[in-house]
Amino acid sequence: MYIGIDLGGTNIAAGLVDENGKILHKFQTPTLAERSFEEIVSDMAMAAERVISDSKISRSDIKSIGVGSPGAIDNQNGTILFAGNLGWKNAPLKAELERLTGFETNIENDANAAAYGEYFMHGGGISDFIFITLGTGIGGGIIIDGKIYRGFNGAGAELGHNTLIFGGDMCSCGKRGCWEVYGSVSGLIKQTKDAIKKHPDSLMAKLKSGRGTVDGKTAFDAAKQNDPAAKAVVTQYLEYVADGICSLVNIFEPEVLLIGGGISKEGNFLLGPIKEYCEKNYFCKSIRQTKLGIAKLGNDAGIIGAALSEKRG
Amino acid sequence: MYIGIDLGGTNIAAGLVDENGKILHKFQTPTLAERSFEEIVSDMAMAAERVISDSKISRSDIKSIGVGSPGAIDNQNGTILFAGNLGWKNAPLKAELERLTGFETNIENDANAAAYGEYFMHGGGISDFIFITLGTGIGGGIIIDGKIYRGFNGAGAELGHNTLIFGGDMCSCGKRGCWEVYGSVSGLIKQTKDAIKKHPDSLMAKLKSGRGTVDGKTAFDAAKQNDPAAKAVVTQYLEYVADGICSLVNIFEPEVLLIGGGISKEGNFLLGPIKEYCEKNYFCKSIRQTKLGIAKLGNDAGIIGAALSEKRG
Repeated sequence: MYIGIDLGGTNIAAGLVDENGKILHKFQTPTLAERSFEEIVSDMAMAAERVISDSKISRSDIKSIGVGSPGAIDNQNGTILFAGNLGWKNAPLKAELERLTGFETNIENDANAAAYGEYFMHGGGISDFIFITLGTGIGGGIIIDGKIYRGFNGAGAELGHNTLIFGGDMCSCGKRGCWEVYGSVSGLIKQTKDAIKKHPDSLMAKLKSGRGTVDGKTAFDAAKQNDPAAKAVVTQYLEYVADGICSLVNIFEPEVLLIGGGISKEGNFLLGPIKEYCEKNYFCKSIRQTKLGIAKLGNDAGIIGAALSEKRG
Repeated sequence: MYIGIDLGGTNIAAGLVDENGKILHKFQTPTLAERSFEEIVSDMAMAAERVISDSKISRSDIKSIGVGSPGAIDNQNGTILFAGNLGWKNAPLKAELERLTGFETNIENDANAAAYGEYFMHGGGISDFIFITLGTGIGGGIIIDGKIYRGFNGAGAELGHNTLIFGGDMCSCGKRGCWEVYGSVSGLIKQTKDAIKKHPDSLMAKLKSGRGTVDGKTAFDAAKQNDPAAKAVVTQYLEYVADGICSLVNIFEPEVLLIGGGISKEGNFLLGPIKEYCEKNYFCKSIRQTKLGIAKLGNDAGIIGAALSEKRG
């Protein structure tokens, strides 16, 4: 039995995970990210203990703790090199959690952990696997030969920072034209807002007025009701997403590539056009066999992947 | 001892390679790519035999033959799935060479083979390594944990077909805006020709008139003599190249990335601005440690890599 902790900017989610990736119990507490490192780690340890005590299992049944954390991670030393949204730099997360809990602890990047969770639960025998999440940014993880690919010092797999438009809009990373500028949900929201300004009579504009806000669903919802302006936004957005996926498949040719993040709930409305675009645009189309799909685990992916990546991967 | 054969569109180059990657003898013969598969394979076998007989070694000293071939390769079966410049489709290269020579034969994509050669001769202990060649297109190879990364069915590592400009100029692969459209030597030649049209009084234009042609050196040569139009071409071209490299480093964070192809002879005139651009534009700059460099082996990389990749990798 393992404990997986998904450390997010909003919540600390801990789960008791068995050998097969089943979550037996979960506990969640707010991160309150503006707090000190020590306070947050203390709550992470508390969440782990709470999962154990709630489950009424023995502490000796727990083999290890795994954490999925935002930021650039030194997986060897268990240090968070840099996590902007938590304000952490060279934070010794492994050492501190091990001191507090006594359990051996492994620290993984959150997108890598989620990728491993999706990979693991997708079933065995897949050699090369890619997972991307469309959210505030575009996160990603790469599994090669059943192991998380981290790069030379653990800061690899920044799939959202592959350029899509050279010299394009500025990304939060300081480079122009990154895929995540256009293909993230933040990008979609910006594209939706721009279209609403241009088309104040569109259904999108009405949805905005009714709901009081624009989110990642606004354009999709209006497009499903045949709003032409919304359909144009969705088509363009999905081409941005698909082109980035097409590039990744040209580079990696994984056996499976799954798309996650809240927007992946759009299902085939999202996946259909992406598949179509990719099949038209792959290099050497006739022999590409990558299976594109929608991720299944939602937020549980991070907990499962964090718990099992070091033990099984 | 091994035989490495680099099968190019112009020449078949065979070499006798020892365990340390040293080429002891070479033999070269024209490919005459318009000929039939059988004729070309026959000349490849002949080149291998010629290397052995010239070297006056015993056939029993040869452990295997390795071939670096253009195109998409099924490495398991030794089949060329598709090689446009040779007009081959599902060509059983391994089987045919084994029948003709009696030596166990391994078929590798030529860029992968060259990448392995550069990796091997760069010295041991590098975990993740990327090699790109700037030529007619952009070729590339990825070495992970000492092994060539081929993707699910051997058609991965098409690094030149990562998008640089979404919706940009059409690439020979059928997708718009691929990195190789802008960053290959063919791209540079096009950019040079466009600039000469706009600046008919530039030194570039004079070099063109004198030499009777525009090649990958025209803009570099004129830029070194301070031709403003040529300097603009070179600056822009190197930003295209550098941005693509920056994306690859964000994705892979390899320990070492080497740049090859004839244009890499420009040395620091090429590498300096690329390094500067990358250091400014990396994701999470402070922790990136990838070493960028110029490849050293030239055409020998393919022979060495083909000979050794399956044996040592």
